[in-house]
Amino acid sequence: MTTKYVYAFGAKEAEGDGTMRDLLGGKGAGLAEMTLAGTPVPPGFTITTETCNAYLEQQATPAEAAKQIDEQLGLLEKRMSKRLGDPSAPLLVSVRSGSRFSMPGMMDTVLNLGLNDETVEGLARVTENPRFAYDGYRRFIHMYSDVVLGIAHENFEKILAGHREKAGVRTDGEIPADVLRQVVADYKAFVEKTLGRPFPQDARAQLDGAIEAVFRSWNGERARTYRRIHHIPDDLGTACTIQAMVFGNMGDSSATGVGFTRNPATGEKRLYGEFLINAQGEDVVAGTRTPRPLAELKEEMPRAFGELEEIAMRLEKHYGDMQDFEFTIEDGTLYMLQTRAGKRTGMAAVHVATDMVDEGLISQEEAVLRVDPSQIPQLLHPVFDPEARAKHPADARGLNASPGAACGRLVFTADDAKQWAERGEKVILVRQETSPDDIHGMFAAVGVLTAAGGMTSHAAVVGRQMGKPSVVGCTALRIDMENRKLTVGEKVVSEGDWISIDGTAGEVICAQVPTTESEVVRVVMGELDPTKSALYGAFDRIMGWADEARRLRVRANADTGPDAALAIGFGAQGIGLCRTEHMFLGEHRLPAVREMILSRTAEERRAALEKILPMQREDFASIFRAMKGRPVTVRTLDPPLHEFLPSHEDLMVRIAVLKATGKNETEDGRSLAELEQQLERVEELVEQNPMLGWRGCRLGIIYPEITEMQARAIFEAAAICLGEGIDVMPEIMVPLVGHVEELSRQRALVDETAKAVMSEKGIDIPYTVGTMIEVPRGAITAGRIAEVAEFFSFGTNDLTQTTFGFSRDDAGRFLGHYVESGILEREPFVTVDREGVGELMRWAVEKGRATRSGIKLGICGEHGGDPESVAFCHELGLDYVSCSPYRIPVARMAAAHSALLEAEAREKRSTA
Amino acid sequence: MTTKYVYAFGAKEAEGDGTMRDLLGGKGAGLAEMTLAGTPVPPGFTITTETCNAYLEQQATPAEAAKQIDEQLGLLEKRMSKRLGDPSAPLLVSVRSGSRFSMPGMMDTVLNLGLNDETVEGLARVTENPRFAYDGYRRFIHMYSDVVLGIAHENFEKILAGHREKAGVRTDGEIPADVLRQVVADYKAFVEKTLGRPFPQDARAQLDGAIEAVFRSWNGERARTYRRIHHIPDDLGTACTIQAMVFGNMGDSSATGVGFTRNPATGEKRLYGEFLINAQGEDVVAGTRTPRPLAELKEEMPRAFGELEEIAMRLEKHYGDMQDFEFTIEDGTLYMLQTRAGKRTGMAAVHVATDMVDEGLISQEEAVLRVDPSQIPQLLHPVFDPEARAKHPADARGLNASPGAACGRLVFTADDAKQWAERGEKVILVRQETSPDDIHGMFAAVGVLTAAGGMTSHAAVVGRQMGKPSVVGCTALRIDMENRKLTVGEKVVSEGDWISIDGTAGEVICAQVPTTESEVVRVVMGELDPTKSALYGAFDRIMGWADEARRLRVRANADTGPDAALAIGFGAQGIGLCRTEHMFLGEHRLPAVREMILSRTAEERRAALEKILPMQREDFASIFRAMKGRPVTVRTLDPPLHEFLPSHEDLMVRIAVLKATGKNETEDGRSLAELEQQLERVEELVEQNPMLGWRGCRLGIIYPEITEMQARAIFEAAAICLGEGIDVMPEIMVPLVGHVEELSRQRALVDETAKAVMSEKGIDIPYTVGTMIEVPRGAITAGRIAEVAEFFSFGTNDLTQTTFGFSRDDAGRFLGHYVESGILEREPFVTVDREGVGELMRWAVEKGRATRSGIKLGICGEHGGDPESVAFCHELGLDYVSCSPYRIPVARMAAAHSALLEAEAREKRSTA
Repeated sequence: MTTKYVYAFGAKEAEGDGTMRDLLGGKGAGLAEMTLAGTPVPPGFTITTETCNAYLEQQATPAEAAKQIDEQLGLLEKRMSKRLGDPSAPLLVSVRSGSRFSMPGMMDTVLNLGLNDETVEGLARVTENPRFAYDGYRRFIHMYSDVVLGIAHENFEKILAGHREKAGVRTDGEIPADVLRQVVADYKAFVEKTLGRPFPQDARAQLDGAIEAVFRSWNGERARTYRRIHHIPDDLGTACTIQAMVFGNMGDSSATGVGFTRNPATGEKRLYGEFLINAQGEDVVAGTRTPRPLAELKEEMPRAFGELEEIAMRLEKHYGDMQDFEFTIEDGTLYMLQTRAGKRTGMAAVHVATDMVDEGLISQEEAVLRVDPSQIPQLLHPVFDPEARAKHPADARGLNASPGAACGRLVFTADDAKQWAERGEKVILVRQETSPDDIHGMFAAVGVLTAAGGMTSHAAVVGRQMGKPSVVGCTALRIDMENRKLTVGEKVVSEGDWISIDGTAGEVICAQVPTTESEVVRVVMGELDPTKSALYGAFDRIMGWADEARRLRVRANADTGPDAALAIGFGAQGIGLCRTEHMFLGEHRLPAVREMILSRTAEERRAALEKILPMQREDFASIFRAMKGRPVTVRTLDPPLHEFLPSHEDLMVRIAVLKATGKNETEDGRSLAELEQQLERVEELVEQNPMLGWRGCRLGIIYPEITEMQARAIFEAAAICLGEGIDVMPEIMVPLVGHVEELSRQRALVDETAKAVMSEKGIDIPYTVGTMIEVPRGAITAGRIAEVAEFFSFGTNDLTQTTFGFSRDDAGRFLGHYVESGILEREPFVTVDREGVGELMRWAVEKGRATRSGIKLGICGEHGGDPESVAFCHELGLDYVSCSPYRIPVARMAAAHSALLEAEAREKRSTA
Repeated sequence: MTTKYVYAFGAKEAEGDGTMRDLLGGKGAGLAEMTLAGTPVPPGFTITTETCNAYLEQQATPAEAAKQIDEQLGLLEKRMSKRLGDPSAPLLVSVRSGSRFSMPGMMDTVLNLGLNDETVEGLARVTENPRFAYDGYRRFIHMYSDVVLGIAHENFEKILAGHREKAGVRTDGEIPADVLRQVVADYKAFVEKTLGRPFPQDARAQLDGAIEAVFRSWNGERARTYRRIHHIPDDLGTACTIQAMVFGNMGDSSATGVGFTRNPATGEKRLYGEFLINAQGEDVVAGTRTPRPLAELKEEMPRAFGELEEIAMRLEKHYGDMQDFEFTIEDGTLYMLQTRAGKRTGMAAVHVATDMVDEGLISQEEAVLRVDPSQIPQLLHPVFDPEARAKHPADARGLNASPGAACGRLVFTADDAKQWAERGEKVILVRQETSPDDIHGMFAAVGVLTAAGGMTSHAAVVGRQMGKPSVVGCTALRIDMENRKLTVGEKVVSEGDWISIDGTAGEVICAQVPTTESEVVRVVMGELDPTKSALYGAFDRIMGWADEARRLRVRANADTGPDAALAIGFGAQGIGLCRTEHMFLGEHRLPAVREMILSRTAEERRAALEKILPMQREDFASIFRAMKGRPVTVRTLDPPLHEFLPSHEDLMVRIAVLKATGKNETEDGRSLAELEQQLERVEELVEQNPMLGWRGCRLGIIYPEITEMQARAIFEAAAICLGEGIDVMPEIMVPLVGHVEELSRQRALVDETAKAVMSEKGIDIPYTVGTMIEVPRGAITAGRIAEVAEFFSFGTNDLTQTTFGFSRDDAGRFLGHYVESGILEREPFVTVDREGVGELMRWAVEKGRATRSGIKLGICGEHGGDPESVAFCHELGLDYVSCSPYRIPVARMAAAHSALLEAEAREKRSTA
């Protein structure tokens, strides 16, 4: 049997279809599918990837393939009633590469192929537009010489620039036709001088040259590197698509435009787009002429518009999704150049998906798959008014620590933030870095901006926790506390001036940019009646469908009763991480916590802990009440104790200044002796690498009374709630375990305390004890740890830090470059690194299950709210993911996608 | 066939032997072996571990076992011509547990079993010593009640203390016989009151009770915990040994003593020990009577002494090792109570081993196995004069950062250290912490002592590097710079006072304790003729034998030519780690290095690097010359750049003081502007967790010009040396690689530079490029990294830090407790943690070899000089270990032990 090397498409017929991406590439398969959908696509044909492989192997196109190309070219000429190289009816074609995956470094496109000294004149005659013909010719020589003949691009730029200057014009569009003729002459001369032979005039030879250039580009340096980094096999090859060119600039019966089948911003069901009469595609986007709304085409060309409307709807139905299309009307004949799923906002995505279910176009499952989990945050966070925002470019950039838009007056201290807010001002709190002392100010502010700190800095963590838009580590800031001025790059802003931050993009704008709040959040917060919000209605329906589809459960990271309630509003099925350290930071608590830390004996420590116990108990009770029997994973104290004390540096500076000035007291009334006493303890506790220091379960092992107090607070709170008739399910989680003995000793303390409280209260309290897997040793020895742990929760923040040896706070200096230059494919603190961190997780899952088959497995690092990481957790077979309240809908959606895609793949395999 | 439950020994016959540790326990097997060696051991019998297991299973001793015990007891009575419970000739026995492994929590010993109200009178009559008899009886009741009857120890202490007080005596030895009678009466009354039945008077019943108590102790709480932690199977069981008691206090024809077959301090071949006439074993060590040298026994009891001498030599020959023995002469009859391999100093070990080879007692291989690698440092480091040291207990303890003894006058600054040393004083430099600015002072001092810092602090690393005794992190120190006083716990020392530090033990002594230097080091340094040192001669012979035995190669961590030469003197076969950052710290280099760091552009940086290049080139040339063609692994720059700048805190304090005092310049002439400029850059570079920051290959990836300069320096140095006719084998090692792309990009820079230098110099330079495996991700993805790496060197310091999530500098606060309380069996920064870190290493070795079968594998963390870790490296099949010069002989010896023990095990398997 003869191999089929070439697949034609055109006149509503196609030899290939949309499934044949391996053989025809994405582009060729797409054009075939479009044609089959009854779309008037300019005809053409696609040469298969197999031809490419054969060419690369034999350094020549197989004879059979060449024969089929000839045949298909003949068919194409017939279909277009034009002939390649025929001056009287010149056929021009585009030549494009296209493999299964789009890939930088491969030859992109040669347009206008078929032009030569004779056909250019023919084209000028046919179009009655010599300028158009010669502009096309000079572009063709330039493009072809660059990508096919290998003559550097800059040479042509230089020649063109010379002519522009001589003609006294600024843009290429202004160059007159006769000058373009001269440009073409100069181009040809340059090519001949460079290559020692003239620019190819034979149109058929041009075509063969272009096809071979496409094939060779598969093995170009950049394409090879890209494939290596992205693990794409080298033997896929590229297809090559040849398509007839059509022109929207052949007079007033011609036009060109772009459109969407629905409004991509709102989802409204109405044809939406723009067009220009007598123009080329690039004119629509160039901005030299103002395009007109698509609705007006109806008046200009009613027949063509009717056809377009009908085709657009047909395409939407065919693909079952909102389409983004390009069209050209050549002398009254409509051609569709491209159609693809249209990009849309989160709001549009939700509306389009639910509408299409109602219209019977797609199933619920398909609707869920239409909403990208990464779009969900758009529905939740306050946003800038788009028009207002467009007027203000960013003045500085930092890390996008906590998403959302915020606008307020600039203040420099937490106390000011509180005072200003109390008198009704919206304020943005700006600090070099924040500390626990700033909490009340962060709470009062509408947004937080810091000059230093990384994605896990205090400001970032608390900002996300509070759902407060935050930009951190914005190094372009200079804070002048003395004069209460902030330098932002070139601009200077004073206290009280308006400033805006975009926590989603990490941008700072020195202006008042109005924001609007999300309807979805207002409903969840109880501020808006759900029936009043169409957006919430659509959101709620699609999230419900997502919940039906998913297998992974979704929990929240929440540390307070109100947070827990918010999390339930967003659909949390439990708490996966309740951090007890944030409970230590309240205004009334920090003194007792500091007293505990400054204690010299276990007795002193116990006495201080006694003061904290009732407060922690009430914290837990409030959370249990909010969760109404859903599981609550409480992590015992984690951070290094010195985090609760003033910094070593701060104390050193204050003491040095007091000594140098001979004063006995600081301005805020601290005596030298007091400072020196604090310094002494801080010196004992301060650490070179706090991330790897005395924290996590290491605290509770050295100071067992801390774990005991926390366990007691949990069980006493549970007893209180049970007494109130509220179910409780506490899960006590020991952090930073690397050795089973650490867990078994902490577990013994917890079990003893549980027993004591149950006997004191005469009540039975259900509970489990487990651990975080967040250092490599914990993952490696998970089999032994599972002897003691009833559950594992992957702490992927720390696990990523220790597996890579990257401090998240410090990695900014190189991590950006790592991702940009392709050393790493993804930011590992955003998406789980499957090859390294993921391998440890896989190991831990296997070993953990081998020891204890029913062990409960979850994740509570920030990756728990990242869609790709959620997909990985689904793949690993975890039981749940846990993330901050605002990420819960993201995780629900991502979990649903994972389950649906898995089912789809399974089905595909079973039918294959 | 009847199971044999009991094995007798005595009268030079034994039913068991030394190999039967599983069945008879260590103790029972040892006594059998001793008896077989013709030693007059007090007779007895051992009940097997199988009996124990049967007892525990059935809660009763098997009938057959009970029968055999009866038979053996009869035989024992016949051999001793005494009978259990017979007042006229009372047989007393000891009862001891003994499993394959010695284990805390198991029953230790019951002595004097067989005493009751009648036999005690018999014993008084026979020994003519009622005090002895009643003292034995009260001890027996106490011990038996405690371990067999389960009555708490304290009760008997309390009764005894009451009698001591009433009798007006201070020690138990002073209590008169009639009071002891009353003690016995009170003890018995207490037991009867507590248990409701009298203390067992039937001697046979006493014995059965003791045997069952031994068996039950196998399942005691502490023993079970110990087995769990140390992975000892639960089904081994314990044996129980019953042995006749003999008495050295039966008059002037009786005696007791301890001895060594050779001098355990020097190895001299002469019987060595002490004895007492008419005494019990405990009197020899109690110090109430002064024991006499063993030589004098010859005059007192010539026959017994002759016999002892003959037996001691026989035992040494039988066991093929120097013996440490205990003996008792009961009424002229010599009994050997115990013999075991004698503990000895490193010096003695080497002499004994080489002498025994010369005496034909052992083979070279056995001689090597007789020298514990951990003893080797004793031969190399200066040591305190033992007599002088004994007079001075430690005044404070810190971390034993760099071994050896040092004594000098106290100075507080590096400049003082240098000046004092220049005028001929020996000084100890004391600092809160050291920094690169202190190097000249550390070099001038004989020892270094710091109040802060961990095992990888600057002082510790440089101390080890310089082979300078150092104690760091000694928190008991308080430095008063103003008054030049140092508080050490209770004592206060002033500048110029004598102070001594023991870097091997981590001790500080506020006194002048004289030291002596090691002969071995003096020979290696060329300061002493090798033929003049018997110690060096023995050392050199045994190290030679070790080299013949080992498979692992041994390299040095060395950064300079002189260090390299020293390493060769100690037997290094190459350099496994040449750290280039120490080269950056010289007085003339730091300014150029700081200029490079403060540069704002790559051009500025290149200009500064140009200045460093010739210095680095000369460094490498000097090392290549010293190594004469041996391989040299050079690591590219590793530490964070801010380590080369003043600290953030220091700058903050200086600036704050200048501002507070209104001055414009610091005392050392730094202007405010200059300090603020430095601060600005330091602020950009300072890190929260420098250990996980911008360091290792991350530097060379962001600033490729650094790697290029270093590669150029290496290849230019290599070219120079090749030109001088010296072979070179540089191996370029890229640190901190976690992803193959990091290595491939750094490798590309190195390869390009190599090509350039070779073409410039017209010379071919052999070289390889590899990486350190020191973060978990490097180990996990070793298979991919090996695509690019020609060698791996395990950086186990960092790998341990990241695998555990322990900062070595900060772990002091909990790691001591972890090891003491048994959470960790070993200090993981000293000995490789096999279960966690070791598992990653094993994985990396497997994956690395799977990709590149000939990949060279080594280790260059400090574990490379730790014997147990060397054994693990041998087991993993690494090619070499690398360690600091002074640890090289340790590593050579440890490698030899690994190879010999492996061969032994193989042989055992093949004959089994």
